[in-house]
Amino acid sequence: REQGEEAAGGAPQRGSYETDPLRPESLVVASAEPFNAEPPVEALVETVVTPVRHFFVRNHSPVPHFSPVEAAGGARYSLTVDGAVERPTLFHAVGDLVARFPVVTTVAALQCAGNRRTEMAEVRPVRGLPWKAGAVGNAQWRGVRLRDVLLAAGVPAVGDAASAELHVALEGWDGIKEHGFQQGYGSSIPLAKALSTEVGGEVILAFEMNGEPLTPDHGAPLRVVVPGYIGARSVKWVKRITVQPEVSSNFYMQRDYKLFPANIGWDEVGQYWDRASPIQEMNVQCVICRVDPAARTQILGDPRASRSRTPVRVCGYALAGGGRLIERVDVSSDHGQTWTYATLVQKHRFGWCLWMATVDAEPPCQLVARAFDESSNTQPEHMASIWNLRGVLGNAWHRVTLPATSSL
Amino acid sequence: REQGEEAAGGAPQRGSYETDPLRPESLVVASAEPFNAEPPVEALVETVVTPVRHFFVRNHSPVPHFSPVEAAGGARYSLTVDGAVERPTLFHAVGDLVARFPVVTTVAALQCAGNRRTEMAEVRPVRGLPWKAGAVGNAQWRGVRLRDVLLAAGVPAVGDAASAELHVALEGWDGIKEHGFQQGYGSSIPLAKALSTEVGGEVILAFEMNGEPLTPDHGAPLRVVVPGYIGARSVKWVKRITVQPEVSSNFYMQRDYKLFPANIGWDEVGQYWDRASPIQEMNVQCVICRVDPAARTQILGDPRASRSRTPVRVCGYALAGGGRLIERVDVSSDHGQTWTYATLVQKHRFGWCLWMATVDAEPPCQLVARAFDESSNTQPEHMASIWNLRGVLGNAWHRVTLPATSSL
Repeated sequence: REQGEEAAGGAPQRGSYETDPLRPESLVVASAEPFNAEPPVEALVETVVTPVRHFFVRNHSPVPHFSPVEAAGGARYSLTVDGAVERPTLFHAVGDLVARFPVVTTVAALQCAGNRRTEMAEVRPVRGLPWKAGAVGNAQWRGVRLRDVLLAAGVPAVGDAASAELHVALEGWDGIKEHGFQQGYGSSIPLAKALSTEVGGEVILAFEMNGEPLTPDHGAPLRVVVPGYIGARSVKWVKRITVQPEVSSNFYMQRDYKLFPANIGWDEVGQYWDRASPIQEMNVQCVICRVDPAARTQILGDPRASRSRTPVRVCGYALAGGGRLIERVDVSSDHGQTWTYATLVQKHRFGWCLWMATVDAEPPCQLVARAFDESSNTQPEHMASIWNLRGVLGNAWHRVTLPATSSL
Repeated sequence: REQGEEAAGGAPQRGSYETDPLRPESLVVASAEPFNAEPPVEALVETVVTPVRHFFVRNHSPVPHFSPVEAAGGARYSLTVDGAVERPTLFHAVGDLVARFPVVTTVAALQCAGNRRTEMAEVRPVRGLPWKAGAVGNAQWRGVRLRDVLLAAGVPAVGDAASAELHVALEGWDGIKEHGFQQGYGSSIPLAKALSTEVGGEVILAFEMNGEPLTPDHGAPLRVVVPGYIGARSVKWVKRITVQPEVSSNFYMQRDYKLFPANIGWDEVGQYWDRASPIQEMNVQCVICRVDPAARTQILGDPRASRSRTPVRVCGYALAGGGRLIERVDVSSDHGQTWTYATLVQKHRFGWCLWMATVDAEPPCQLVARAFDESSNTQPEHMASIWNLRGVLGNAWHRVTLPATSSL
């Protein structure tokens, strides 16, 4: 269990996985209990909106089981809004929210902070689920704005001095047993983000994903979607929303999902947890998902058109945090000496950006991709320089090896 | 003149440098006409707010010379606000603005996109002023909000569909002759940025710097300050502000201050200019400014306390674009194998962050520093991977060599 996410987070609740839902076979399982799974990366570039059957699942516990009536065996769903609000509110059902607030639709990418952990673990072992590069997806979310719910409850508006330093704690119905007590998975976000009116960046309490009701694995009946932040902040099965002066004390805000230099190990990290801020916005990310033979467009007399060079079509995804656009994706077959511009399929704030490029390759060789966002930030060349003990935010240049015997 | 900024921007106007102001001797001159100069980096860590005598100067032309009356030899200053506004407005003096709009004060760092160009040029020559790491400063600006001026002129408010795709073009009174025509230095920013209400991120029309009237070199009588963006967008001696549907057509938005991969040279760039967006927000930056002997706190029996190890105190600056906070600065004396946390002197959105760290060094050796911002973006390890023909946005890990004969 050394490699399991639980190694850092304590043992999950036992005994109720029998009510977990059936899962699509289209996902590769990283851990069965709790259920964590990702699609093969090839599936991610098929469509801009990732189908639910290809959307990664990240659970910390058994899936909460809700019943319309208590006798049916599950808890009854409800959502509490409380803390520093004038009118604490209890919603008995998602329908109560739909009746009171406008329903909106937005497209946003969610990415687990541990995406690409297996690549970082090649430098030196890390603790956490062995994610490849598929712990990310781009979905259409339908729900109500957290902003509207908070303003109705009487929270200080943005610009109000009282709101500047407030946070919104989010807690789920899942029960995680750790360190002797049980709590729901939790996070918090700054109130300013919760009240954001930025197009595409509004925080949503979602009940539909890609036009269908949320599935239990994705947080039914209601989950939070925080566009531009690591997936860990988008709490599923949301139970309680609390406006408060401090960052959430939940384990996953205080003792996980933080970054440290490579020389901070598990023996030293105890004195450094409080020094690091919880990760919120994602860093720049870019991954090669497919490499296919490309049409050979030989130029007469072009000395580069030798038999050993094979034009290949490379496809992948790129995304940036905080709603920043991807400005450019570069692909190289010579270790970054020369780069080919990829064509960006679409630019979309808070969603991901699929891309494709045609490059000449001479197998055996390595293909490399990297992205720049609109702040001109880019990715580090190697995982070694950003290695951290939990293996989070691994965003080094993505490399795919084409073997000499490549069927390309 | 190959190394001059003009190589890319055409020859500057000749003949009127005789009215340029006297300059402090505290700056190192990178070019005399037009005047461009930076402080020694050691000066930058003396105070959080950079004194004017140590604030870099970046001019593209002779300094515009204004007179209170036309007979006195200079133009009379005025500011025009026009374009997609209901009430185009002509302000005849800065006093007209002060009389109509609230005066505010903010601290913001400005950094030339070419800062640290000499380091990038060590990889391969680039065109541009030979800036070391001093083309950056942190000042207190006093003026009126561009937002207030635009709203008074009747611009569509944020959230209005009409405003989403608008830009605000900024043009200066300086006259730059290039490609056969003469124009003021110009830039544009998205209307959404011009109307921003983000604390510290509001765009200012400034008439004071550090509590004193703006000097001619810094844009007197009125300049734009765009916090979080590269300095190139903060137009000095501002003459005209135009709300328009497209990005400014000014040379410095279209044919300069853009990023390209290293394999795009001057022979190829012609077909790529329109493909790249103008650089706006800065990327993550961090520079070592001073290395001094530190008090030796020998621990009895500590095997590391050998004579060859010298504790040194390292100081520098760090900053990020878009108002993102610096989360962490790391310093290493072993090429990034192990890192020491720096103490951040202050965290300030849109301003820079001074820092200091005490590390053990064994001269001859190299000290390295890097920063992470709150989006977990960091700097590339080497300039080679981000080399570009104009030498802009060089933000690789900053390295300082301590020679064996170091007086430390």
